[in-house]
Amino acid sequence: MGTARIVFDRWGDRYADCIAGVRSSAVRDLFAAASRPDMISFSGGMPAVDLVPSEAVAAAARNAVIHEGSAALQYGGSDGRVQIRTLVAELMAEIGVRLKPSDLLITAGAQQGLDLLAKTFLNPGDVIITEGPTYVGALQAFSAYQPDVHCIMMDDDGMRMDLLEAELKALGPRGAKFIYTIPNFQNPGGVTMSPERRRRLLELAREYDIPVVEDDPYGRLRFDGGHMKPLRSLDEEVIYLGTFSKIFAPGLRLGWIAAPTPILAKVLLVKQAADLCGSNFAQVTAEYYFQGTGWRRTLAELIRTYAERRDAMLAALDEHFPPEARWSRPDGGFFVWVEFPAYVDCSSMLAEAVEYGVTYAPGDGFFPDGRGKNCMRLAFCYASPEAIAEGVRRLSEVVEDRLELYRAFMAAGVLPNREEGAA
Amino acid sequence: MGTARIVFDRWGDRYADCIAGVRSSAVRDLFAAASRPDMISFSGGMPAVDLVPSEAVAAAARNAVIHEGSAALQYGGSDGRVQIRTLVAELMAEIGVRLKPSDLLITAGAQQGLDLLAKTFLNPGDVIITEGPTYVGALQAFSAYQPDVHCIMMDDDGMRMDLLEAELKALGPRGAKFIYTIPNFQNPGGVTMSPERRRRLLELAREYDIPVVEDDPYGRLRFDGGHMKPLRSLDEEVIYLGTFSKIFAPGLRLGWIAAPTPILAKVLLVKQAADLCGSNFAQVTAEYYFQGTGWRRTLAELIRTYAERRDAMLAALDEHFPPEARWSRPDGGFFVWVEFPAYVDCSSMLAEAVEYGVTYAPGDGFFPDGRGKNCMRLAFCYASPEAIAEGVRRLSEVVEDRLELYRAFMAAGVLPNREEGAA
Repeated sequence: MGTARIVFDRWGDRYADCIAGVRSSAVRDLFAAASRPDMISFSGGMPAVDLVPSEAVAAAARNAVIHEGSAALQYGGSDGRVQIRTLVAELMAEIGVRLKPSDLLITAGAQQGLDLLAKTFLNPGDVIITEGPTYVGALQAFSAYQPDVHCIMMDDDGMRMDLLEAELKALGPRGAKFIYTIPNFQNPGGVTMSPERRRRLLELAREYDIPVVEDDPYGRLRFDGGHMKPLRSLDEEVIYLGTFSKIFAPGLRLGWIAAPTPILAKVLLVKQAADLCGSNFAQVTAEYYFQGTGWRRTLAELIRTYAERRDAMLAALDEHFPPEARWSRPDGGFFVWVEFPAYVDCSSMLAEAVEYGVTYAPGDGFFPDGRGKNCMRLAFCYASPEAIAEGVRRLSEVVEDRLELYRAFMAAGVLPNREEGAA
Repeated sequence: MGTARIVFDRWGDRYADCIAGVRSSAVRDLFAAASRPDMISFSGGMPAVDLVPSEAVAAAARNAVIHEGSAALQYGGSDGRVQIRTLVAELMAEIGVRLKPSDLLITAGAQQGLDLLAKTFLNPGDVIITEGPTYVGALQAFSAYQPDVHCIMMDDDGMRMDLLEAELKALGPRGAKFIYTIPNFQNPGGVTMSPERRRRLLELAREYDIPVVEDDPYGRLRFDGGHMKPLRSLDEEVIYLGTFSKIFAPGLRLGWIAAPTPILAKVLLVKQAADLCGSNFAQVTAEYYFQGTGWRRTLAELIRTYAERRDAMLAALDEHFPPEARWSRPDGGFFVWVEFPAYVDCSSMLAEAVEYGVTYAPGDGFFPDGRGKNCMRLAFCYASPEAIAEGVRRLSEVVEDRLELYRAFMAAGVLPNREEGAA
């Protein structure tokens, strides 16, 4: 876009201190490159909205405007319409969380929820705890408030509780403003927190008196295995972020926060200051879209489609990727996380991949501190199974080129033959 | 709403420092009361969206989803679709501002523009300059970044340049982060900055090297007199905030920022962190709504309607309000500002007004420092001429009750017979 031009900035010394810390999302920057027709994109977590029937959305929008009249076009309450909050409460009941409409506030996607929570809780220098790696958009939202982000590594069962406990012990009671977690099909890790870990996380949070923020965009996109109870269903003090972006469409920018009443009252003030209120037009359209059962068929088809794509990606990785690489095998969601030996730099490799006609998200974007360079996130949500197979094949060539170079260097004793890095 | 319940807040000592400064908007809190069927509301600046043809919006939404397909439902660029930025550039050309789409970023209403700019520029304690009184939503957006707000009083020609110059002299070059102004039909003052003052403001801003933020939600809602050139048309460095809320509908939450390229690049990062991107669904709907000429007929009808309501309010004020009151006579926009002698407390009077079935916005909400208690903002945009006449009559009874009380106290020498206060 035009604003990316290099221009002398005569206001360079006027910006707020926090601006230096606000990072551009490498993932978002790649959306442009990913739109080239020949490009196979594994970079952005873009839902398969082509499966959402346009006719159903058009009918919902029409009904919204015709039947709700000027209410659909007017300013609304900062917490959102009671009708959509009632709908969200019903959706949440289906995954085991009991809520009243008054426990909820509608946001512009879960991303706004992250920003509002960060603004509500964070002073510069405050400690927060996240998984490592974690959602790049969360790091971006938090970064504007200059926190000190402590990452807890994961294994196949999600955030490691032994490491979390050690961290909390070091920080002491109330030593962090909140613990941010994506328990289901974690972005970018692709792993799911086990029921035992969920219970342990809540125990530790209570013991150290630290609020838990549960971000659950993908919870309903499970392909294999049984549903796991959200943290919020086990503990009413958990702050829960949800979104319509993955069960309906991100283009409406609708998400929600469930939180204890006093916290929600603060978030409401912050929401008012940020944009007065959400879009009644989008909210009413969603209310009508979720009437009847059509949305359930669409969601089932989305899940089938994503499962096929996940299968295609794992099969292609098994076939093409070298033994030096390891990757997660997600039971749902959008992402596979690939880890290479520490000497593979996935950031610098990206330009080469783009030349080969494939994109991914380099791993260092998912850490606050430059870790993860030897990793990449592959999104399987957007491309067809055939494109995924071809994309992974292309990517394997790029990877193979790099590895051969490294192997040659190592054979010559130039590069250290290190074991896998911290990430 | 439920979140307003008084509940012990066990997180009371955990919030960010800025939260103490984030004020609830008295105006927004009144939206609830204003929705009682018997209530005549002069409090909120709610556009007359019942004049926007539902069929036209439904058709636009339908065309948006059917013709733009999944683009309307997907994530978009953080700056907004190039199509809607092109539309905005065309709309801006009609009021004398030449812009390229790349000079623009789409926001969730102009309110989000205020929040993004404040986040981009303000460290705690930074000075900003506004008119006094000024838009309560701007004060609310700014307050989260803890600035030191300096208000410059207005007269019938807008912000007083002699006072601004004295303030700038005292602060010195670059002594403020920006000057925030609403030149047209100011909210809440109802006055318009004269062409001479506009030129002088830009001279002073250049001399003291301080960016100017021009907020122009009402510019196209002029009832009398000729169009005045926006500040942005006179100086390309002016940051301009616009909105679809008054020429289309606030329920879509669509506004825009035009700013110099380096500033816009920073605002883009802040926008990404805040909500990833705006709503493609709302943007595409607006693109289709603004095709053809139907929107021009609707806008002309809105202007005619608001002019009638303005006339009704001024006539009713002339008829019913006491000689102790003075008020502005706006040439456009939504608001009349009423000033009473300093001893009249419009905040405490509001509860009585609500009992009489009429609401207004107390003046102290429009100052950062408690001034303006002897003032009120009356919005004429929403009620019918008949309701306006009745509402002003009710309000005059409340006012008369108060004034009689004060007159009696003063006759007894109990209250100081002060002249008008600072506001």
